[in-house]
Amino acid sequence: MFTYETSVKLHNTDAAGLLFFADQFKLAHDAYELFMESIKFSFRHIIQESDFLLAIVHAEADFLQPLYSGDRITTKLRVEKIGTTSFTLTYDLTTTREGTVGTAKTVHVCIDKSSREKRELPDALVAALSEHT
Amino acid sequence: MFTYETSVKLHNTDAAGLLFFADQFKLAHDAYELFMESIKFSFRHIIQESDFLLAIVHAEADFLQPLYSGDRITTKLRVEKIGTTSFTLTYDLTTTREGTVGTAKTVHVCIDKSSREKRELPDALVAALSEHT
Amino acid sequence: MFTYETSVKLHNTDAAGLLFFADQFKLAHDAYELFMESIKFSFRHIIQESDFLLAIVHAEADFLQPLYSGDRITTKLRVEKIGTTSFTLTYDLTTTREGTVGTAKTVHVCIDKSSREKRELPDALVAALSEHT
Amino acid sequence: MFTYETSVKLHNTDAAGLLFFADQFKLAHDAYELFMESIKFSFRHIIQESDFLLAIVHAEADFLQPLYSGDRITTKLRVEKIGTTSFTLTYDLTTTREGTVGTAKTVHVCIDKSSREKRELPDALVAALSEHT
Repeated sequence: MFTYETSVKLHNTDAAGLLFFADQFKLAHDAYELFMESIKFSFRHIIQESDFLLAIVHAEADFLQPLYSGDRITTKLRVEKIGTTSFTLTYDLTTTREGTVGTAKTVHVCIDKSSREKRELPDALVAALSEHT
Repeated sequence: MFTYETSVKLHNTDAAGLLFFADQFKLAHDAYELFMESIKFSFRHIIQESDFLLAIVHAEADFLQPLYSGDRITTKLRVEKIGTTSFTLTYDLTTTREGTVGTAKTVHVCIDKSSREKRELPDALVAALSEHT
Repeated sequence: MFTYETSVKLHNTDAAGLLFFADQFKLAHDAYELFMESIKFSFRHIIQESDFLLAIVHAEADFLQPLYSGDRITTKLRVEKIGTTSFTLTYDLTTTREGTVGTAKTVHVCIDKSSREKRELPDALVAALSEHT
Repeated sequence: MFTYETSVKLHNTDAAGLLFFADQFKLAHDAYELFMESIKFSFRHIIQESDFLLAIVHAEADFLQPLYSGDRITTKLRVEKIGTTSFTLTYDLTTTREGTVGTAKTVHVCIDKSSREKRELPDALVAALSEHT
């Protein structure tokens, strides 16, 4: 399990006073970005130097509690599933006061940069992901 | 069916060169916002003057084709389901060249502004939504 | 003068109920993106196929009136200045009811993609920009 | 001086590969949000409970170095000026490798929530701001 701490910022909220739903996906993705960096697959490296991309093909989220600007959020990321060409991450967003306030899931497919076709996940990535299931 | 035309903007993309996944939810939500305005339930009215809010409690999306800055997107919104206290919308994002490039679904629950509890959808809203199922 | 019509979306607002200031820069930039497309210098073409980039090195804005979700905004873009390696755009955001509700200015420098150094603006771009001063 | 540490996230970048300019304003504003919280004027308190708002009436920024997803940014916020009804903040964005990579300035005016007119800054806010000039 990988943990990411942040707070809801004003620009994550909308005129209804609460976190805008799509920004929960941003918070989850920020956890994913820092997780990938922690396992030595930084986005910058993947984008600039690798021969593959990791495309999100599916995302979903549940919104359980209203979140306000300033709320401290702990996002717990887990690798739910590792396939041949794809993997699935789940996110549990919590506050100390309320426990789980939201969840999310993202499915990532490995794409060859040249052919734009699906390809197998790199072995080193599978190994790194496996340590967080 | 309600239709919304827009284009992917540069700030909807990221360094991987394509639409950032969470921004597909923004595009879908923009269609929802204009749909609600078209049936006389503008967000500004709901936020400032009504006694209820419509909170998104679930969202999901599939990402079928890479989208680039400048791509023209037609979003077709349908009311999939109308319940007692909630309704579900689906979105079909299309380009003229490729057909459906992405889909999304959002579930909206009616919340009483004072009690913060679920409440029945207003009759006028049910009536308006019913015309788009 | 180039004109761009849009509306403030819910995700452009924040919990204070109004347009989030940084999103006025987004609206201005959207006008710039569509302007560039109209003069045959689409961002997608510049990013994927040209040998130069246009980097924003300075931006400023004034916020004159509160703007709400749903407000219709007409952005009028003008080319204020064309230099050897840079150009300056100004934006006038208006509503029919209130006239100018905000202004912005952006300064763009032409960068060679290989050397990452400043270079002269392409002649064809200078010619196209000159028609909108 | 108030200091805020963060990193550029993928959604802060665009298809040109670098930080999208308007997102530098977001990073600066995040520093402002945490600064205000640190001096006991959290946005949530101001929005929900106070009789005033702090509206940004002017913003400007310079973009000195390209910033990539993953770059660690330290933002140093200073109170540049405290007037009767307004104050001005400046932001210095730095990386350890390059020093200053960008700057920003925002001007904030105190608005009475009822009358929507300018009003004097609260004494307690002036006192708190004065400690960071």
